[in-house]
Amino acid sequence: MTDNTPRKTSPAPLTLLGLGAMGTALARTWLAAGHPLTVWNRTPSRAEPLAGHGARIAPDAAEAVAAADLVVLCLLDDASVEEALTGVDLTGKDLVNLTTGTPSQARARAAWAQERGARFLDGGIMAIPPMIGVPESGGYVFYSGSSAAFEAHRRTLAVPTGTRYVGEDAGFAALQDVALLSAMTGMFAGFSHAFALVRKEDIDLKEFAPLLVEWLVAMAPATHSTAEQLTSGDYTTGVASNLAMMVAGNTTMLRTAEEQGVSSELLLPFMNLMERRLKDGHGDESTTGVIELLSR
Amino acid sequence: MTDNTPRKTSPAPLTLLGLGAMGTALARTWLAAGHPLTVWNRTPSRAEPLAGHGARIAPDAAEAVAAADLVVLCLLDDASVEEALTGVDLTGKDLVNLTTGTPSQARARAAWAQERGARFLDGGIMAIPPMIGVPESGGYVFYSGSSAAFEAHRRTLAVPTGTRYVGEDAGFAALQDVALLSAMTGMFAGFSHAFALVRKEDIDLKEFAPLLVEWLVAMAPATHSTAEQLTSGDYTTGVASNLAMMVAGNTTMLRTAEEQGVSSELLLPFMNLMERRLKDGHGDESTTGVIELLSR
Repeated sequence: MTDNTPRKTSPAPLTLLGLGAMGTALARTWLAAGHPLTVWNRTPSRAEPLAGHGARIAPDAAEAVAAADLVVLCLLDDASVEEALTGVDLTGKDLVNLTTGTPSQARARAAWAQERGARFLDGGIMAIPPMIGVPESGGYVFYSGSSAAFEAHRRTLAVPTGTRYVGEDAGFAALQDVALLSAMTGMFAGFSHAFALVRKEDIDLKEFAPLLVEWLVAMAPATHSTAEQLTSGDYTTGVASNLAMMVAGNTTMLRTAEEQGVSSELLLPFMNLMERRLKDGHGDESTTGVIELLSR
Repeated sequence: MTDNTPRKTSPAPLTLLGLGAMGTALARTWLAAGHPLTVWNRTPSRAEPLAGHGARIAPDAAEAVAAADLVVLCLLDDASVEEALTGVDLTGKDLVNLTTGTPSQARARAAWAQERGARFLDGGIMAIPPMIGVPESGGYVFYSGSSAAFEAHRRTLAVPTGTRYVGEDAGFAALQDVALLSAMTGMFAGFSHAFALVRKEDIDLKEFAPLLVEWLVAMAPATHSTAEQLTSGDYTTGVASNLAMMVAGNTTMLRTAEEQGVSSELLLPFMNLMERRLKDGHGDESTTGVIELLSR
């Protein structure tokens, strides 16, 4: 049975430390949704415009933290978190750290928060500021760490953008965030090479771009088969185009780059790993085995 | 006005040289659609199974070419095309070359065909054999070269998979084919790195893969803005996340890879170019300027 009665709870108060582009975007959505919001920023001028939207501006981080049980951090880096919160009483607080960092930093910060009597959630934001407050943008935040803290605040956390809780290990949000950004970096490298190949020809790039998008969108689901192969350990099942065929195709890609006067530096590292794997006798596999070669 | 009367023309006869996995898949769709088909393959045993489906098997390439005006080539490489057709009368033929090759090879082959009295179309197949004859697979062939030849045979060429004619320059089909495959190579490199980061953690890869696909699909349309920027020459308009911010983010990606024991070799070339472009004073631009650094 679903309870369809609208909840009449008033929007929960919270504190936000850090008013860069992302922090400011978050603050505006909470204010617009009626949440009592206390803000602090190292450079106070960035906080002033929010006062007009109803934010309370705290003179220092300690007062900001004292103002609410839920404290969201959106600072420059992990060192800024340390700096802002040193000497501040965190007992009984729920810290939600949206500051960019590595999985290790998140885990260390979780232990640090726990020692200070706080519950800790780390977040990895899969959005840019213009996507905040725009549900149809598809943006979201990975959360990991205290599931109790996530459950306690999930409705407040869902105000600016989507939420995805990925486990008690405080490092998992940052890890999955970084993994997705890394994959995107590879895709950007790939389409940069593609544009370099065609851009000096009499080809309308605005007609070419949709073909490129369509192709990348059609090929992205190859990741499902990679996940299945990594899970089963069998890299030959369901292989439509095997490593031997792909390595043969690489020659045409490299020659074409040469013809077009384009450096192959963005493609070579992956091609070299494919070739190494082929030479190791895995020609009937997919490219999944390359992943093993990346681990030190 | 659209003519909705079904055409009653009988399926046109054609010849196919080359019965590898792709050639065989093509042959089956033409036979199934009722096209009289003559086939030839250097190794005759590969042709035999098609005889049972109605194909006429030619004893040599010359007889195969003589059998129809439309001659489709799906051979190993450009040298195989040369070898198969040397001394064969091509006068009045329409050659459709689906053999994998570079733009230069396609252009040279077009001139070669014209000297021999044939019209020439080059094709770049954006599909793997299991996608042939499966319209919902989204596969297609890029065609470029003689538009007259394309118009004359478009219905026959559309039998196995989709068709996209991209211009009179015989090299454009191969060029756009290779550009898309190159972009895919980058995307594969990117998601291989992503899997390397997470695979040794207690993360269900089959739950992670859909997040990765969704993210890549959401980010692929960035190519539209790249195309617009390359066309206008202004790399700062509509930049949501600029080079300065992205280079700062690269540090977190590299540190995370280090923490997870994963080599950054697949990400570094693109990151290095981003950094070079930033140092050249383009921090307010998108990554589009990297494309300039790729051209020699």
